[in-house]
Amino acid sequence: MKSGKLVIIGAGNVGSAILNSVLRLNIVNDIVVINRNQDKARGEVLDASHTTAFVYSANTSIRVGGYEECADAKIIIITSGANITQGNNGDRMVLLEKNVAILSEVMDNITKYTKEAIVILVSNPLDVLVYVAQTRFGYPREKLIGTGTLLDTARFNKMLGDICGVDAKNVTGYVLGEHGAAAFIPWNTVNIVGIAFDDFEKQFGLAEKIDKDKILQDMKTVGFDILALKGHTSSGVALSACRLVTAIMRNEKCILPVSIVLDGQYGVTDVALSLPCVISENGIERVLELPLDEKGQGELDHCVSHLKGILRTLTAGNSNAGGQ
Amino acid sequence: MKSGKLVIIGAGNVGSAILNSVLRLNIVNDIVVINRNQDKARGEVLDASHTTAFVYSANTSIRVGGYEECADAKIIIITSGANITQGNNGDRMVLLEKNVAILSEVMDNITKYTKEAIVILVSNPLDVLVYVAQTRFGYPREKLIGTGTLLDTARFNKMLGDICGVDAKNVTGYVLGEHGAAAFIPWNTVNIVGIAFDDFEKQFGLAEKIDKDKILQDMKTVGFDILALKGHTSSGVALSACRLVTAIMRNEKCILPVSIVLDGQYGVTDVALSLPCVISENGIERVLELPLDEKGQGELDHCVSHLKGILRTLTAGNSNAGGQ
Amino acid sequence: MKSGKLVIIGAGNVGSAILNSVLRLNIVNDIVVINRNQDKARGEVLDASHTTAFVYSANTSIRVGGYEECADAKIIIITSGANITQGNNGDRMVLLEKNVAILSEVMDNITKYTKEAIVILVSNPLDVLVYVAQTRFGYPREKLIGTGTLLDTARFNKMLGDICGVDAKNVTGYVLGEHGAAAFIPWNTVNIVGIAFDDFEKQFGLAEKIDKDKILQDMKTVGFDILALKGHTSSGVALSACRLVTAIMRNEKCILPVSIVLDGQYGVTDVALSLPCVISENGIERVLELPLDEKGQGELDHCVSHLKGILRTLTAGNSNAGGQ
Amino acid sequence: MKSGKLVIIGAGNVGSAILNSVLRLNIVNDIVVINRNQDKARGEVLDASHTTAFVYSANTSIRVGGYEECADAKIIIITSGANITQGNNGDRMVLLEKNVAILSEVMDNITKYTKEAIVILVSNPLDVLVYVAQTRFGYPREKLIGTGTLLDTARFNKMLGDICGVDAKNVTGYVLGEHGAAAFIPWNTVNIVGIAFDDFEKQFGLAEKIDKDKILQDMKTVGFDILALKGHTSSGVALSACRLVTAIMRNEKCILPVSIVLDGQYGVTDVALSLPCVISENGIERVLELPLDEKGQGELDHCVSHLKGILRTLTAGNSNAGGQ
Repeated sequence: MKSGKLVIIGAGNVGSAILNSVLRLNIVNDIVVINRNQDKARGEVLDASHTTAFVYSANTSIRVGGYEECADAKIIIITSGANITQGNNGDRMVLLEKNVAILSEVMDNITKYTKEAIVILVSNPLDVLVYVAQTRFGYPREKLIGTGTLLDTARFNKMLGDICGVDAKNVTGYVLGEHGAAAFIPWNTVNIVGIAFDDFEKQFGLAEKIDKDKILQDMKTVGFDILALKGHTSSGVALSACRLVTAIMRNEKCILPVSIVLDGQYGVTDVALSLPCVISENGIERVLELPLDEKGQGELDHCVSHLKGILRTLTAGNSNAGGQ
Repeated sequence: MKSGKLVIIGAGNVGSAILNSVLRLNIVNDIVVINRNQDKARGEVLDASHTTAFVYSANTSIRVGGYEECADAKIIIITSGANITQGNNGDRMVLLEKNVAILSEVMDNITKYTKEAIVILVSNPLDVLVYVAQTRFGYPREKLIGTGTLLDTARFNKMLGDICGVDAKNVTGYVLGEHGAAAFIPWNTVNIVGIAFDDFEKQFGLAEKIDKDKILQDMKTVGFDILALKGHTSSGVALSACRLVTAIMRNEKCILPVSIVLDGQYGVTDVALSLPCVISENGIERVLELPLDEKGQGELDHCVSHLKGILRTLTAGNSNAGGQ
Repeated sequence: MKSGKLVIIGAGNVGSAILNSVLRLNIVNDIVVINRNQDKARGEVLDASHTTAFVYSANTSIRVGGYEECADAKIIIITSGANITQGNNGDRMVLLEKNVAILSEVMDNITKYTKEAIVILVSNPLDVLVYVAQTRFGYPREKLIGTGTLLDTARFNKMLGDICGVDAKNVTGYVLGEHGAAAFIPWNTVNIVGIAFDDFEKQFGLAEKIDKDKILQDMKTVGFDILALKGHTSSGVALSACRLVTAIMRNEKCILPVSIVLDGQYGVTDVALSLPCVISENGIERVLELPLDEKGQGELDHCVSHLKGILRTLTAGNSNAGGQ
Repeated sequence: MKSGKLVIIGAGNVGSAILNSVLRLNIVNDIVVINRNQDKARGEVLDASHTTAFVYSANTSIRVGGYEECADAKIIIITSGANITQGNNGDRMVLLEKNVAILSEVMDNITKYTKEAIVILVSNPLDVLVYVAQTRFGYPREKLIGTGTLLDTARFNKMLGDICGVDAKNVTGYVLGEHGAAAFIPWNTVNIVGIAFDDFEKQFGLAEKIDKDKILQDMKTVGFDILALKGHTSSGVALSACRLVTAIMRNEKCILPVSIVLDGQYGVTDVALSLPCVISENGIERVLELPLDEKGQGELDHCVSHLKGILRTLTAGNSNAGGQ
């Protein structure tokens, strides 16, 4: 395995945003882009390659390739799949059948060459795809990471940070569950430097109490707002993937909320959703269980039930989807 | 003036690529995006703002604004203007009339608020616009910088570096003149760590001699190749602008090839084109004159003549263009 | 004021470690070192200046100067003063009289030129010196920041992170009060991603319960351990100062535990000690009051009483110290 | 081999400066310090480890260890050996016998565990030690790199850059030969962005011609100046080693002047000295031969003769040095 090698599958808005963002971090030194439309990939690779000639940008090999490049990759990022469009009414599930088929083809191709690489999955509907990719292809569970609520958490932290007038990085607060409508926030664990959510008003001199329901709703819809405003989303999701690349490359053992197939957390199995996980060079080292109050437990139950319902539909209707 | 404030005018492919690239460099702390289509700008700003919540991404204020935000900006980047499309037959000059008008409007708006900020101009046809912006609006000459052949130089260095098997940053070699068809390379000054171009074959173990004409031609067409392959160019030009932002913010006194209105270099005045310039917090500190051999001098003469010809057309045909 | 200008006063182990660390961060572009022994300062400056010639190290002006250089500085770091040695029995207070006199001379010199710069104070006994510097010289309270328990907090976070097998940056937990024997930890606010301290054992799979008293004690003595092992301390304290430089230069609005003269927090005035503060380009924007349980309140009371006792001694015995 | 693992041998001024500098670059994730005096190493490691708790500092494993840690290291830096002191009259050769013995012991220990790691040698007399380490221990020639004139070159570039008012990184100019008295500058290859040395005066508006002999002399003595001023040298040499670490870790294929045992360059063998080399993840990929004029060739000849003379003395007098 080449320690600094990254494969990006898909050269659409998200794939190319990842390519350009990861270059700025000077963290990998060999990048291969795989895309059905090879011209698009070549264009992105060519454009990006010129950036490495500037001082402060590390020399990096950037090229177009095929799935055989996965054989010695350290990290593979999958961005393939149809994207949500404005006509989708804000539901990532409309992409279900199409993207399960696309993902299955991609995983089929990857697993011909490796089950050693750490796979970062970005495509939607995220949690369903993580479950499918892991279970149907027998990919090592801790090496298959969905970006999941990592982006939702960044959005939530930014919103709370802005309200309180502090750097979002000082907000300790996680969005868990589905990367979608059944996401939830365990408010009892939210704090800023140890100050509980209920004390924010007083400690940060806020004119009015923060409306939890509104924040949660805003966090869920902001992706669709961006979609409506600029036609797609790319910057935030690209950085989510890059955050994971950095954590893996540097063996950080940092904690990030990502989607993984559960194996007993909160008594749940047979579904993938986001919980805070310790990320190292080996992938997911540990899955943490935030303490949930009654409301949080109810939201988790709902989320599990919701996602399992989709997986059942999938199994019934697409029993041969991907076929492998 | 706020020392860390950057205004980006235009939120198209280039403007948004600059926004996202400059964020990764953690070099400015207050960014305002100005765009006719405010929704597009809001979408880009919203998407980009979420990236600041991740560890290693500095907290940065990112927002949409109007031209009044230029009043206390340290740097203003202008990306406005129609872009070359595939139908343009590879000639940035087809954009001439339209973009002179757009630029004039932009400069009119900027100069209502400031002549203190350092203006980085990215729009095409680059050198003509630099000349127009500086002379028609009396903008301080050393504070108006066109990215010019900075990107061409990066491309040239990358090509040579790849051929020789070394980091492009070790190539000392500049593309000068027009950011366009009349660009030229003073080959007599090209070297890698002091090894002259003619010795590359032997020193780097090349199977065959490097074809100067082909390299020059490839460098000139690669932008159009990218355009044909991915539909637009963004990564390379965005990093060119960011390279200048870094040089200015850090008061680097580094040397970069950029477009400026000449005031006697090589005996030339009344035209803007790219020469190597020392860049500091004050903008362009010094313009350098690379020693030209006979061929180089001829190419410079052709370039000057070519650009002055365009400027004459412009003056004749658009004497009131911009109207200020 | 020059936005990128930093003055470092003192070129001993700590001052030179700050110089070298801050250079690696590429965050300021003009550094002046002031030291009684000008030769030592010249040696440090000369040695450090060569590092800027390497790629990835930004060009930075580094020079030796006098107090007049403070006039247009953005940030001034004071490291002057005698250091704790092994014979001091682990008590920073033995330095009291000597360092109050040294600090007073330094502040006297600084305030001849500026009360605009943000002053970062590193010398010991830290909290006493912060109080003296602010009150005797009428320095703007929010612009005089003692590194205080910022280093203690880093040490505490690192210890907890190592025990739990996670990145120290994921530990939310602060050391407050005196940078010294009366430091304390409000354990009720300590958490990792929202998991309370009491759940660490279970969530992180620890073999045994974490001993709070031992951690607190280890955190307090580790500085003296380093002193005994390597003869001085420098790396950690230098990064504490650099962390503040970054926060100020980037206008981060991040929250860091630093020492400031209190003006009513927890009902306390007329003493300086560390509480979590929001740091911006203006210095300290807001002082936060972590919720204290009974034990924490007792420890705060003890800390205040202890520090006020020292200040009374000082006022009595050194009423003319520094000569103002 | 662990891709992110660095072993630093020696925890003196240079070793600890390397430890602290390399941490700021966030480029390796596992650092082991080996030192005879384990207490000193523990103190340095403990102090440095706290810096990783700060935001923007990557989590890094830092620990004290024994030579068995070399077994899976990617890079090993040797700083062991007596240092030049002021009594040495500016001659690194006084360290010869003592440091050959120390180095031999170190290499003996390393080669028990690995000949795969890339070894960066920093100790003096540099070129002699590179030759001894490579030839006596059969270490792969391209994996044993002496920092050599990398630091001299940085100093030379900084001096020229300061004189011309430009960033030192824009100076193309190398110090070659011995890291010591027989270093030389092939002036015919020195240029700034393609402008030859003889044109600097005119192009950079210098009041007087640059004195080559003085620059060369200043470059050679500045290390001793620093020694006299601050008692040791550390910052510059530490960054030289870190520059190599970065080049190797990122597989940069950048060109740096470093010491290697020659195998026919300029017709020379059986001696180590510095020439510009292409550095990759495999160590030295290619050794370049700058074109030398008559003066340069004479200086190279002198340098080779000088170094071979020392090696002969060594072979004669210390034939069993290191006991192999």
